[in-house]
Amino acid sequence: MSEDQIVQIYRERFGLGEDARNDVEAMRMGNRLLVSKVDTLVYGTDVPPGMTPRKAARKAAVACISDFAAKGVRPRWALVSITAPASCTSRTHGAMAAGLADAADAYGFKVLGGDTNRGAEISITVCMMGMAKGIFPRRDAPADRPGYWKRPPSVPSRGGASPGDRVLATGPFGLSAAGLYAVSHGVAGPRGSLRAVMEPRARLNFGARAAPYLSSTMDSSDGLSTTLNEMAARSGVAIIVDCDPAAAGVAEFAAKHGLDPDDLVYHGGEEYEIVFTLRRGGINDIFSAIRDTRIPLTPIGRVEEGEGVYLERDGRTRLFDEGWKAF
Amino acid sequence: MSEDQIVQIYRERFGLGEDARNDVEAMRMGNRLLVSKVDTLVYGTDVPPGMTPRKAARKAAVACISDFAAKGVRPRWALVSITAPASCTSRTHGAMAAGLADAADAYGFKVLGGDTNRGAEISITVCMMGMAKGIFPRRDAPADRPGYWKRPPSVPSRGGASPGDRVLATGPFGLSAAGLYAVSHGVAGPRGSLRAVMEPRARLNFGARAAPYLSSTMDSSDGLSTTLNEMAARSGVAIIVDCDPAAAGVAEFAAKHGLDPDDLVYHGGEEYEIVFTLRRGGINDIFSAIRDTRIPLTPIGRVEEGEGVYLERDGRTRLFDEGWKAF
Repeated sequence: MSEDQIVQIYRERFGLGEDARNDVEAMRMGNRLLVSKVDTLVYGTDVPPGMTPRKAARKAAVACISDFAAKGVRPRWALVSITAPASCTSRTHGAMAAGLADAADAYGFKVLGGDTNRGAEISITVCMMGMAKGIFPRRDAPADRPGYWKRPPSVPSRGGASPGDRVLATGPFGLSAAGLYAVSHGVAGPRGSLRAVMEPRARLNFGARAAPYLSSTMDSSDGLSTTLNEMAARSGVAIIVDCDPAAAGVAEFAAKHGLDPDDLVYHGGEEYEIVFTLRRGGINDIFSAIRDTRIPLTPIGRVEEGEGVYLERDGRTRLFDEGWKAF
Repeated sequence: MSEDQIVQIYRERFGLGEDARNDVEAMRMGNRLLVSKVDTLVYGTDVPPGMTPRKAARKAAVACISDFAAKGVRPRWALVSITAPASCTSRTHGAMAAGLADAADAYGFKVLGGDTNRGAEISITVCMMGMAKGIFPRRDAPADRPGYWKRPPSVPSRGGASPGDRVLATGPFGLSAAGLYAVSHGVAGPRGSLRAVMEPRARLNFGARAAPYLSSTMDSSDGLSTTLNEMAARSGVAIIVDCDPAAAGVAEFAAKHGLDPDDLVYHGGEEYEIVFTLRRGGINDIFSAIRDTRIPLTPIGRVEEGEGVYLERDGRTRLFDEGWKAF
């Protein structure tokens, strides 16, 4: 059974339509919009060889923060549920607490409490909460001049891309997958790949500043192909990848080890970039919003009428969805 | 390492004092008070023999709801994170979804989304959210005439008991522990014990109606002795157990199987009653608040100056803390 099928079982039972799917869940409380997200890191599945407990716990938080970043919301509070075997030492618990505190310091949220449990393997569940701001792009704005509402508060969706929009991301792709291959096979990865695996960072500063100017956004942690396919499907458009979003060194690494570079770039996942679309003319707003953040923008492609995601390379190749999904 | 020591590692690292410990976490959002709680059910640890996946998932939700009930807050939204081995069938996932939906129907919350993961054993993490009301008892009210504020919203604490208060609970104790022994050893348990194990219910109606009139409250899921010790310590008082809170049939069951009845009644846990203290005269408010709920009230004891918890039985025996704790 695929992860998608499992997710579907729960979504159907809870009466959650496709429309309800987003990086975060949003709930109206009076005139505020509470945003929350839960994410579990399972040691046997999500922790690569050589990752310390401190880095693993930090990553558990970063995965959650990245979804907040994609929606432009700063997380404020976290609850944490830790499951561990009885044999887990106080040193390991201390390291995991330190890793969560690292993330709390770096991204400005507070851990308010949680739960500890005995179980067969270590897992760390982070549930994060924050509040959306009362500004978001008008869907009905003319394409050459984006407009913004002040209220009510909302978060940008995955489904707001229109033909003519540009597709960009907060960084190039493939380093995480290359780094994971490198640490798993004991070979040297491309520059920056070890850090991409062991110390991923969420693009919170970008999201918090730029979200109001984006027509659609999504975190890329399920893999770039999954992200692009989801954004295209939810927006009812086609996405044409007309730029190569591979990070430097990824193609060479793939060639050297007999790997398909597209697998590393499009189907890797665990890469916490924000993929977003912009109305024509929106790029200037973005540049002024993120002026002093030194966040690189990677061009990916363009939005057209149609459906699906295509690589514009020797004609057009359809890029299929692969990866994991939250429900 | 004890659960208490593990919890202490995290609490220290996150800068959470003893004061911050409560059944739920509360966060101020404008003039609202957001209340949240995370709780993980681990199959190998928390699911007794013979419990179906549907009942297990329902129990995962009930454990969280019970903490809300103790604070008088109705849960409104839940996020759920499910971890399961790849071998877990769609039927099992469907049953777990149904169990969560059972709880959502019975207690009136909505599952908004979540996360699925691969792992060595099944675990279900429920993160619940709701809003506290703007009414709570005045700490400075005279003991014979409780008073209430309208605002700001708050939740009753574990630490508000004063000498002269009465200690009560929403039901008698020992059925869950007796039932767990019965299903584990293939013997017949006391009447109601099987249901107490397989279909525990949270006292949400009691809590939502009665919370404003309680001087302190706590959910008993960590065991009655842990609960009483915690309430006494946090309130800076002694609690004298002067009534026997054992459920009918528990003493006989213990005698028949060579068990200590106090172990079943005080140290069992997994029993989702609300233990609470009342100012003198407060009982009338409670009776009128819960008039039509048919919730039985079990008298437990009284609050005195001093510290610790004592059984008033052939003199006084100190009742020590045993069990599990959330941080």
